[in-house]
Amino acid sequence: MNTNTSRNENGSAYYLSQPQADLDLVSVVRGTPSGELLRRYWHPIAVASEVGELPFPVRALGEDLILFKTPRGEFGLVYPRCCHRGTTLYYGKVEECGIRCCYHGWLFSPDGKCLDQPCEPNGGEKRDNYRQPWYPVRERYGLVFAYLGPPDRMPILPRYEALEVLEPGEWIEPDGRSLGSGGDVIAPCNWFQHWENIMDPYHVAILHSAFSGIQFIPEMAQMPNVSFEPSPIGVTSTQIRSIEGKVFRRVTEVAMPTLRVVPNPWATGFNRPVESIGWTLPIDDTHYRIFTAGRAAESGPLYYPPKGLMSGNRRWQDMTEEERQRKPGDWEAQTGQGAITFHSEEHLASSDRGVAMLRRFFRKQIETVAAGGNPAGTIFDERDESVRFAAGNYLEAPAGIPVLQS
Amino acid sequence: MNTNTSRNENGSAYYLSQPQADLDLVSVVRGTPSGELLRRYWHPIAVASEVGELPFPVRALGEDLILFKTPRGEFGLVYPRCCHRGTTLYYGKVEECGIRCCYHGWLFSPDGKCLDQPCEPNGGEKRDNYRQPWYPVRERYGLVFAYLGPPDRMPILPRYEALEVLEPGEWIEPDGRSLGSGGDVIAPCNWFQHWENIMDPYHVAILHSAFSGIQFIPEMAQMPNVSFEPSPIGVTSTQIRSIEGKVFRRVTEVAMPTLRVVPNPWATGFNRPVESIGWTLPIDDTHYRIFTAGRAAESGPLYYPPKGLMSGNRRWQDMTEEERQRKPGDWEAQTGQGAITFHSEEHLASSDRGVAMLRRFFRKQIETVAAGGNPAGTIFDERDESVRFAAGNYLEAPAGIPVLQS
Amino acid sequence: MNTNTSRNENGSAYYLSQPQADLDLVSVVRGTPSGELLRRYWHPIAVASEVGELPFPVRALGEDLILFKTPRGEFGLVYPRCCHRGTTLYYGKVEECGIRCCYHGWLFSPDGKCLDQPCEPNGGEKRDNYRQPWYPVRERYGLVFAYLGPPDRMPILPRYEALEVLEPGEWIEPDGRSLGSGGDVIAPCNWFQHWENIMDPYHVAILHSAFSGIQFIPEMAQMPNVSFEPSPIGVTSTQIRSIEGKVFRRVTEVAMPTLRVVPNPWATGFNRPVESIGWTLPIDDTHYRIFTAGRAAESGPLYYPPKGLMSGNRRWQDMTEEERQRKPGDWEAQTGQGAITFHSEEHLASSDRGVAMLRRFFRKQIETVAAGGNPAGTIFDERDESVRFAAGNYLEAPAGIPVLQS
Repeated sequence: MNTNTSRNENGSAYYLSQPQADLDLVSVVRGTPSGELLRRYWHPIAVASEVGELPFPVRALGEDLILFKTPRGEFGLVYPRCCHRGTTLYYGKVEECGIRCCYHGWLFSPDGKCLDQPCEPNGGEKRDNYRQPWYPVRERYGLVFAYLGPPDRMPILPRYEALEVLEPGEWIEPDGRSLGSGGDVIAPCNWFQHWENIMDPYHVAILHSAFSGIQFIPEMAQMPNVSFEPSPIGVTSTQIRSIEGKVFRRVTEVAMPTLRVVPNPWATGFNRPVESIGWTLPIDDTHYRIFTAGRAAESGPLYYPPKGLMSGNRRWQDMTEEERQRKPGDWEAQTGQGAITFHSEEHLASSDRGVAMLRRFFRKQIETVAAGGNPAGTIFDERDESVRFAAGNYLEAPAGIPVLQS
Repeated sequence: MNTNTSRNENGSAYYLSQPQADLDLVSVVRGTPSGELLRRYWHPIAVASEVGELPFPVRALGEDLILFKTPRGEFGLVYPRCCHRGTTLYYGKVEECGIRCCYHGWLFSPDGKCLDQPCEPNGGEKRDNYRQPWYPVRERYGLVFAYLGPPDRMPILPRYEALEVLEPGEWIEPDGRSLGSGGDVIAPCNWFQHWENIMDPYHVAILHSAFSGIQFIPEMAQMPNVSFEPSPIGVTSTQIRSIEGKVFRRVTEVAMPTLRVVPNPWATGFNRPVESIGWTLPIDDTHYRIFTAGRAAESGPLYYPPKGLMSGNRRWQDMTEEERQRKPGDWEAQTGQGAITFHSEEHLASSDRGVAMLRRFFRKQIETVAAGGNPAGTIFDERDESVRFAAGNYLEAPAGIPVLQS
Repeated sequence: MNTNTSRNENGSAYYLSQPQADLDLVSVVRGTPSGELLRRYWHPIAVASEVGELPFPVRALGEDLILFKTPRGEFGLVYPRCCHRGTTLYYGKVEECGIRCCYHGWLFSPDGKCLDQPCEPNGGEKRDNYRQPWYPVRERYGLVFAYLGPPDRMPILPRYEALEVLEPGEWIEPDGRSLGSGGDVIAPCNWFQHWENIMDPYHVAILHSAFSGIQFIPEMAQMPNVSFEPSPIGVTSTQIRSIEGKVFRRVTEVAMPTLRVVPNPWATGFNRPVESIGWTLPIDDTHYRIFTAGRAAESGPLYYPPKGLMSGNRRWQDMTEEERQRKPGDWEAQTGQGAITFHSEEHLASSDRGVAMLRRFFRKQIETVAAGGNPAGTIFDERDESVRFAAGNYLEAPAGIPVLQS
C-alpha cells in the first residue's frame, strides 16, 4: 500500500496526517515567540468607564488579572492571587490607596507595594519585603491599556492622529463590544484568524456579498482590484472599486501589535481619515475580543455599525443556528477555522498574498524580539509624533481628483 | 505489608490497581488496530431523508465530517475544514455540482475536486492542484453509508437478504433513533459494550425480567438454554425457551463490522427471516448510535418497538433518575460500564462464553488486517449473493416441526 | 536583561514563575504521601438517615464508591463497577444480604463476597472465587464512617467525649450541610485550605468583621491575643478577647485526620465543652464537604448556625455575585485561593504561625506513615478512653475565675 500514491490519486481523507497549528506564530502565552512579541506593546483591557468600585477581572494574553480603579481615578492591575496566602483579589476592596485583600486585609498600591498588614504587629513592620505582582496601566481614548512585558523594554503608549485631530463637536467614543467581529463580544478562536482577515479583502465580495447577500453597501459586492504593501508598522491594502463612475478607493491597514484600521464598510464619511481604530485583544490562545475607539459627533457615531446593525439586516444575536448557516459572516468564517486554525492544512493562493505578507511581517517582528531588538511600532520617546494611517474610504474622479462627498 | 496476601484475604478496594481498557480491541480511532479494522467496511452515517439542503455535520469513527446532498440527489462526504484556509464547510452552500465554502467561495465536487475559485484569476487557473479530502458515500435502504478506509481496499456495500426479499405491500424503513440502545439516540459509551451485549442473552432473564420487571414478552423471562457458534462473518446464538408447550427458538447474530441482527424481542412475526438489521455506529471511542433498516408494512412496522415503547411500559425519555435506578435497562447496564469499560477488572464466567467468542472473532479480524489481509465479510464482487442470516424467532413443535403462527 | 534584578526592583508580574501546589501536602489521592496518611483514618461519607433503599453514590478521597444499607440496617461500601463485567452498582438492587447487579444479577455481601450468580449453573458453583472490592463502614453519631486504607492498619473508630457525655434531654444530631464552609454543601477547592483556616483566627477580625461587617458576634471583631500549641493529635489555638470586662477565652482545635473542633462563633453556651465536631471530608483534590455531629436539645441546636444563618444577616445561597464580592466570607476566601492554592507563591507572616504549625504537624504524620508507623490519633484498642478536646468558649473573671453564663 503506497499511501502517497494513493493519496495523490484519490484525495481520500484517510491519508490526512495529524493537522497542526503554528503556535510559534499565533500563541499569545508568555514564553512563546509570538507571546513575547505581543508583550512588547500596550494592549487595551477594558473600557475605563465600565470599571466601577469593585475589583474588575480581566483576562489578556492568557493571564488572569484584577483591574481596579481607586476613588481618585488611579488604575491598578495586579496578579489575582494575594501574595500572602493566595486568596483572589477579586474579593478585595478598593480603597483610596489601592486594593485590600478580604482574608487578612493586606493592602497593595497600584504598583504592588504592600501598605498595610493589619494582622501583623504595628500593621506589618516588614511589609516592605512583600510585593503583589503587578503590571503598568494607562488610560487613553476612554480605554484602559496595560503593558504585560519586561519592564526594561516598556515603550510609551502611542497616540494616533485619527483619534487626536477632532472636528468641532466631535469626541472620542470607546467601545468594548467587539465591533467588527461579526458576532458576540468574546469570539472563541485565536485572535490571528481575525487579524489576518483584515488583509483578506477578497472575501468581501464572496462571504459578505455573493454568498450571504449584501452585508455592507452594494458597491462592496464588486470584486475589487487589490494591492498590498508593507508599512513601517504593518501592512496596508488598497481596494479599487467604482461608484457611479467615480473611483471608490478603500484603504485598510493592520498595524502592530493587533490593530485593525478599517474604515466603515458602510462607507459613510468619504475622504476623511479613518474614523476608528480597533485593537484585537488576544484573551488567550483560543479567544479574542475587540476594543475600539472612534470619533463620534452629535450626528451619530462616525464608526460602524450604522443603525445598530452588526451585519446585513439582522443582528447576529437574533439569528438562529440555521440562519447563521445560511448567511454566515466574519464570525462564522473565522470561528469556523477552529479554535486555532490548522496551518499545516492550508493551501494559500494568489488572493492570500496579503495574509502571507502580514505573516511574514509578523514573523520578522518575532525574530527581532528573539534577537534582543525592539519590534516595529514600539516608541520610546514621548515627543514622537502621533501615528498616522492611510486608511480610509476615498471617492475620487477617475483622473484621481478627490470628489466632494454628497 | 504483603499486598497480594492482604488483597486475597480481605478483598479490600485499597489494593485495586489502576484499571485499564483494552483499546486495541475497542478503539475506533484511525491508526489503532480496531479502528483500522472498522475502516475496512461501510458504515451508515445518516438517514438519507434527514439530509436537507444545508450541510449536515456527522461524526463517525472519531472523525468530524460534513455530509451534503446536491439538488440532483448526489451525496458527498468531506473533511470539514476547507483545504484553502480551513473554514468549516458546515457554513458552506450546497450547489448543483458540490459544496461551496462561505469564506472565499471555493467549490468542491462530492469527490473533493476543486471546481471554482472565484477570488482567483479566471476562477482559479491552478484549481486542479487543490483537493478537498473526501470519503465515498452510497445510499441504500434509506441510509447513507460511508467508507472511511484506504481507497485500494474498499469493498462493495453488501446487500442483505432480509432487506431484499419483500412480501407484497412491504417496504424498507430506515431509522436513526438508536432502536435497541434502550435509551437516547447517542449513547455515551463505547460501541463494543453495546455490541457484545447481543451475544449475552442470559441478561434478558435478569436485567429485562427478574430485576426490572418484564421488559419484553413474559416468555423471555425464562432462563434459556443457550448455544453459540461462529458464523463466517460473526457469531450466532440460539436460545431455546418454551411457549405453551411449543419450542420457542430465538436466533440472534452479530456480524462484521457492527451489525446487530436481533429479531423483535416482543416476538411478533414468528418463523420469518429477521425483520430488521441494526448497524452500531461508533461515533467515537466513547459514543455510539444505532441505525436500523427493517421491513415495514401498512399493518405497522415489522421491527421493534411495537406501540412506540422502548422498554417495558414506560419510555426511557419519560423516566426519572430514580425510576431508571429502580428499573434499569440496556442503556443503564451498558453506559453503566463506563465510557469505556475497564477490561482489566472483568471476571468472565461461563455465561460470558458468547462475549468471549465474539471478542476472539473480532481480534482475529484485527490480526487479519494487521497482516495485510481482508477481514471477514468484506466483498469485492458485486455479483456476490446477498448476505443471509439465520436470525429470527421460531416457534416449533417439540419434535422440531414448525408451528404456524397464530 | 537580568530577570532577577528586574523583578526585585519592579515587582512586575512578568517575572512570575509557573506557580506550584504542594501536592505532597494536600493531595488526597491513593498513593500520594498525604493521600496515604488520610487513608489511615475513618472518614464520614454520609448522614446515615439519608441513605434509603437505593444504592447511594459517594465520592471520598478521590474514589467513587457505592454505599448501601440493607433492610436490616447493615451498611456496605463497594467499588462501583461490578467485578463481573463492570456495570455500576448504582443501578443495583439492595437486598436482605447485600447488593445485586442489574445486568446479570450477581449478589454481593457488604464485605464483597459473591453470594449468587443466577446466570451460572446452580447459582455459581465457583462464586467464591469472585469478590467485589469493598471498604469497611461503621455507623456512629448518625454518620456513616468508612475506612479506605490498608486492612492491616485499620484503627478503631474513635469516640469523642463531647459527643458521648450528654445532659438530660440532649441528643446527637448529625448534619451533612457543610456547616462552617460559609457557603454551599460541596466546596470547589482542596480541603486543606478549609482546614488550615481553623488555625488562622486572625482572619476573624478582618474577613468576618472589618472587611465584610460583623458576621459573628460583635466581640469577635476585636483582634485577639492569640497563642498556638501542638496537641497529641493536632494543634490547639487560644484567642483572648474581652466581653464587658470579662475575659472571653476561645479555644479552637484541629485534630487528625480532618477534624475541625470549633465552638459556636455566635458564642452561645459558654463554659461547656465544644458542642460539635466537624469532619472535613476531602471529596477529591479539588472538592470538600463537611459532616458535623453535635449535641442538640429541645431548646434548639447547640451548634451553629443559630437562627439558620450561615454568615452575617444574609444566607450565602441568597446573595448575588456582587453581594459576595462586597461581603465575602470563608467560602470566598478559601475557594478564592483556587482549586488548589499555589503554595509556591505564598508568603507566610507571623500571623500565619498557626498554619505553619499545623502543616509541620501534618507533614510529620506523613513521614510517620511513610516510615511504616501509625500516625497520631490512630487508636487500636477499643478500651481506650474517648478523645477529649479543650475547645470551647469560656467567659472568665479577669482573675481567671469562671463566670456563670447569663
